[in-house]
Amino acid sequence: MGGDFAPCNEVRGAVDVLRQTANRFEVVLVGREEAIRSELAKINTGGLSLSVVPADDVIDMHDSPVVALKQKPNSSLVVGMMLHKEKKVDAFVSAGNTGAVTAASALLLGRIRGVSRPTVAAIFPSETGPTLIVDAGAVTDCKPHFLFEFGVMGSIYSEYVFKKKNPRVGLLNVGEEESKGDELTKEAYAKFVAGKNRMNFIGNIEGRDILQGKADVVVCDGFLGNVLLKFAESVPSFLKVKFKNYAAEGLLQKVLMGLLRNPLRTIFKDFDYQEFGGVPLLGVNGVTIIGHGSSTPKAISNMILRAEEMVNKKINFHIEQSLGNNSSEGLNG
Amino acid sequence: MGGDFAPCNEVRGAVDVLRQTANRFEVVLVGREEAIRSELAKINTGGLSLSVVPADDVIDMHDSPVVALKQKPNSSLVVGMMLHKEKKVDAFVSAGNTGAVTAASALLLGRIRGVSRPTVAAIFPSETGPTLIVDAGAVTDCKPHFLFEFGVMGSIYSEYVFKKKNPRVGLLNVGEEESKGDELTKEAYAKFVAGKNRMNFIGNIEGRDILQGKADVVVCDGFLGNVLLKFAESVPSFLKVKFKNYAAEGLLQKVLMGLLRNPLRTIFKDFDYQEFGGVPLLGVNGVTIIGHGSSTPKAISNMILRAEEMVNKKINFHIEQSLGNNSSEGLNG
Repeated sequence: MGGDFAPCNEVRGAVDVLRQTANRFEVVLVGREEAIRSELAKINTGGLSLSVVPADDVIDMHDSPVVALKQKPNSSLVVGMMLHKEKKVDAFVSAGNTGAVTAASALLLGRIRGVSRPTVAAIFPSETGPTLIVDAGAVTDCKPHFLFEFGVMGSIYSEYVFKKKNPRVGLLNVGEEESKGDELTKEAYAKFVAGKNRMNFIGNIEGRDILQGKADVVVCDGFLGNVLLKFAESVPSFLKVKFKNYAAEGLLQKVLMGLLRNPLRTIFKDFDYQEFGGVPLLGVNGVTIIGHGSSTPKAISNMILRAEEMVNKKINFHIEQSLGNNSSEGLNG
Repeated sequence: MGGDFAPCNEVRGAVDVLRQTANRFEVVLVGREEAIRSELAKINTGGLSLSVVPADDVIDMHDSPVVALKQKPNSSLVVGMMLHKEKKVDAFVSAGNTGAVTAASALLLGRIRGVSRPTVAAIFPSETGPTLIVDAGAVTDCKPHFLFEFGVMGSIYSEYVFKKKNPRVGLLNVGEEESKGDELTKEAYAKFVAGKNRMNFIGNIEGRDILQGKADVVVCDGFLGNVLLKFAESVPSFLKVKFKNYAAEGLLQKVLMGLLRNPLRTIFKDFDYQEFGGVPLLGVNGVTIIGHGSSTPKAISNMILRAEEMVNKKINFHIEQSLGNNSSEGLNG
């Protein structure tokens, strides 16, 4: 219920994906029952494996995450997450308040053994395919071993979901040399070297290397990752303004830009979050997929598919296999 | 001599700008005399106010900045910077090793009173005109009052060079609310509020706000600024690859992309560093403009114009006026 267009887009996305997949899974809609049923009534839902669990409260975008969880135990977020905690559902998908979804996942589901902090893994386009940025905003103040763990989790996700063999993990830095960086990255570099049997660590990478696809997994703190993600997402609309201004210069320019509308749409598709849907929260004892507040039905459908993928590929099992006995090697401290 | 195409592009850029400006200033070329004279011999330099000061050593891109300054006192960088320190020249321009130019400026010229750390101010395009990012890489580990000082210096530069009235200074963060951010930005926010009479502080801004032009000056630590700058610079070449791939899909696509070549060139002009030339190092007792290693003659010409501008607009005088008596208010600690 926390998304900007809830429950309309959520309901439509769920219905669409069940049709597409011929009921391959079941979708439980959690939220204000009347609102959900009224959306469902507008479309043909015959034969779909859909159910509704009522929850009257809504945590909105302005609520303080941790406070809201306590004050609104009957919110769609808390009720839905509890269903997941109690294993009544296998995954949780939301277009609501990112901070609140992250906090609810960490507090209610708990962390996987060996994980110090869960991480939001954003997906960037690149010349060599989808690139993961970990962390994209879950943890603003990081310790070096957090970055190491983000790298391990990102590597596993990249391998199983993007089917990349031996994913290249790079530490985002201001230069390539080992000696470069701030205190955090210099110390993290040493952790990556010490734990290099856990992943294919390729060393430091720079800002310009991300879109070139030099790494499959780009590791940074959540402050930097969040700024970078939001900056990258703003590039297409900035260019649209530039194209529009160019078209306004004259008739020829207008015609040219008209011809180019479709090609440009195709070219910018990679920057479109709807294609991937949402981003996974890695490191919690469960599967949480977080989407944009303004998620379209298509984005919601894709988020549900991402959740199914994470369950089927047993991402959490692999994370625990890799990080579960971390403390014995001093990597997580 | 430290640039990738030195001294060819440096010599050509200097000659071009002297022609353009009808000898409005004098350019002193510092470096290997024979190499410079041989470049000068290839072009018509009649009547231009050019001179050459010999320096036999070169600090290259792989040299460690501080070590190189000690080991190569006869480098073009050290010799040129000493000319500036001794007030024989009014400004110093280089396409060499950024770290070494920054270190030489800080060590040899010293800092303006009230400035804790000099900052590199990068220029981003935006919907509301050029936006400054301070710091873009001079200081990776920042204290809160460094960010405050970066804001003041950026504001002054934006006002005098970009002629923006009351430039809007934003603190780059993961959310707009005062409570958002990592430890550094939360503490810096308090400094900005305490010193808000020094500039037009508009609060926190997010990654998506930069290209939208919500602030004229975007303040962040040099680690984040450097990553962001390099990321932004890589956007046009990433899109070029996408356009190329699209053109390869068929004849129609090829024709469409052919039509688009010129408009795209116009549209991406804003992302082209050559247009602005180089970036200023703010906070040192002197004028230093730093360019890309691969600076073209056009970029070199523009760097020299930027240097002239900084001298004429008395940027350093204004910085000292604003920050010189900082310590009395506890803003710089």
